[in-house]
Amino acid sequence: MKLNVTKPTLLLDIQKAQKNIALMAEKAITNDIRFRPHFKTHQSAEIGKWFKKFGTESATVSSVEMAEYFANNGWTDITIAFPVNVLEIERINKLAKRVMLNLLVESVESVQFLKNNLVHNVEVWIKIDTGYHRTGILWDNREKLLAVTEQINRTGQLTLSGILTHAGHSYHTQSKTEIIDIFRLTLARMNQAKKTLTSAGYEPIEISIGDTPGCSLITDFTGVDEIRPGNFVFYDVTQFCLGVCELEQIAVALACPVVAKYPDRNEVVVYGGAIHLSKEFIEEKTGSKIYGYVVQPGDNEWGALVNQTYVSALSQEHGIVKTNQEFIDKIKVGDFLLILPVHSCLTVNLMKYFYTMDGEVIKTMQSK
Amino acid sequence: MKLNVTKPTLLLDIQKAQKNIALMAEKAITNDIRFRPHFKTHQSAEIGKWFKKFGTESATVSSVEMAEYFANNGWTDITIAFPVNVLEIERINKLAKRVMLNLLVESVESVQFLKNNLVHNVEVWIKIDTGYHRTGILWDNREKLLAVTEQINRTGQLTLSGILTHAGHSYHTQSKTEIIDIFRLTLARMNQAKKTLTSAGYEPIEISIGDTPGCSLITDFTGVDEIRPGNFVFYDVTQFCLGVCELEQIAVALACPVVAKYPDRNEVVVYGGAIHLSKEFIEEKTGSKIYGYVVQPGDNEWGALVNQTYVSALSQEHGIVKTNQEFIDKIKVGDFLLILPVHSCLTVNLMKYFYTMDGEVIKTMQSK
Repeated sequence: MKLNVTKPTLLLDIQKAQKNIALMAEKAITNDIRFRPHFKTHQSAEIGKWFKKFGTESATVSSVEMAEYFANNGWTDITIAFPVNVLEIERINKLAKRVMLNLLVESVESVQFLKNNLVHNVEVWIKIDTGYHRTGILWDNREKLLAVTEQINRTGQLTLSGILTHAGHSYHTQSKTEIIDIFRLTLARMNQAKKTLTSAGYEPIEISIGDTPGCSLITDFTGVDEIRPGNFVFYDVTQFCLGVCELEQIAVALACPVVAKYPDRNEVVVYGGAIHLSKEFIEEKTGSKIYGYVVQPGDNEWGALVNQTYVSALSQEHGIVKTNQEFIDKIKVGDFLLILPVHSCLTVNLMKYFYTMDGEVIKTMQSK
Repeated sequence: MKLNVTKPTLLLDIQKAQKNIALMAEKAITNDIRFRPHFKTHQSAEIGKWFKKFGTESATVSSVEMAEYFANNGWTDITIAFPVNVLEIERINKLAKRVMLNLLVESVESVQFLKNNLVHNVEVWIKIDTGYHRTGILWDNREKLLAVTEQINRTGQLTLSGILTHAGHSYHTQSKTEIIDIFRLTLARMNQAKKTLTSAGYEPIEISIGDTPGCSLITDFTGVDEIRPGNFVFYDVTQFCLGVCELEQIAVALACPVVAKYPDRNEVVVYGGAIHLSKEFIEEKTGSKIYGYVVQPGDNEWGALVNQTYVSALSQEHGIVKTNQEFIDKIKVGDFLLILPVHSCLTVNLMKYFYTMDGEVIKTMQSK
């Protein structure tokens, strides 16, 4: 690899990322549903543009600030997929003036606040809890669903687009079958919630579904109007271990200088820690924590996993890599290791810049 | 509290931080040892200045970039407390030209590299592993210690200052006594390593010791030449749970808007997630993960812990707060909660700016 790595550097394999985008975009086209990718994974105007060639016109973001960034970069139909933060009403009003803004609501109180404080029209989606139990109205809570919808209906500035869910419990699964089952149950529950509303005369009600595991494994999206996966653009070790992507689909790797080696304990210490990878980990059945996998460097890409080699601990700047004797014998101080992140969204957020395999820089909204 | 919080905001109680600094600085003065605080916790030129009134002239940092930042802000005696990253030799040479730069070495290879590539003189410290087993030469590995020292001695640009350790295993303890025992054992092992060198004619050899738990609890530093604690400036939930600081000493809190509440399950969802707090957690004996504690707001400060109330899970932007019925009844969407971080260094790194209780902004090297 001919890259000039002197400190922790986030490498992006553009071919892999663009293939991931193409696969998901084409799946949406085939199913004739709206593709509203979540941009919190890449946070990058330039990468956002890659979606345009598939006709993608809608985006999902996770904060008002991120909505502003993508609005400044030509996106005009944006969903902030987070329960509306009423404290940011001034910025929301400014945004709603210039783009089609979609907000998430889940309580009568929030809708009333919007009624009293919104200056411009916005679309709203009711957040449904289909079993993840993070946010949203429980799919079978008819009373609350109808109360919120009625309040929306009485608010001139609000138009109800539909119901939206994130089946984040698909990340706590042991098999592809389980992920597919969660997707099916999620959709059944969304249809039940939809029926509660349509039976009461509220129509049309769209269904928006989100998670990368489900959207990656499902091919038939009958009954779904919109998908909002985000992580699929890069994938990561978490998705790989869930069986959601192939190793070859992981499109980012952190290049980390080797600063010390300990053959006695088969450990290498790299410059690359919690402020680069994030402290996200997966836990193996043995109880070992994995903060990243190490892959073989290739000429202009990265290759297979290095056998028995993973990041076992992180301090602020230190990464401890457990490995085998054969690999450690080949490594020397001043080399760099390529580490696949456990959670690419958090690593990208920390690293702020991507470097392509040709050495070009791609900025994010975190770049200085 | 009269603060204008609209999104996750890192509050800094200046009085608390300055008291923490005074306590540690005065401890160093009383013991007549060099105080070389680790600046990776605050990463802020302005906060660095607060140390100057105690006569502090030396700083510790964790990266070349951080050394450059503090060099640009008037610091002239800087230790990069990380095994020297030889890939950054160009920047190291530029830095060594303008400040007294202290580097960490622990292998003959690294010293040889410096011999062949350093243009300016630097001070070096040999990193000793006194039991933490992250980096360093084992304290009783006479052969390696002498080999590295001999190589340093043969390198004209290098002056050996002494031996340096970080007893990070003090974080894996159950009691104050255990922390104090680790400190004593660490010092005994450092003295053993020192004797290996002085017996071979290498003199003088200073001893530099680092961790916040040890430095906070110990009062008598006989035999130590330099201390390098960092976290003590703000402390955090980790230090509080270790028994290292009082709750009243924790000097930073993240103010997080409440965006949803679920009285049925006694949970509140705040805008404040992994990209704000970091995913660092402590594990209770019950197996519960704690990502932060919630404290009561006061007029111009924060107060006691809210009973049975803590951050139980984090997504990218969401924080799930488990609480009791009494507290949830008082909370409404549009309020904000004050959360003490589990690991203040990582939270500061992510938040990039501090806001004082008077609403003033203090920048860090991460600020845009």
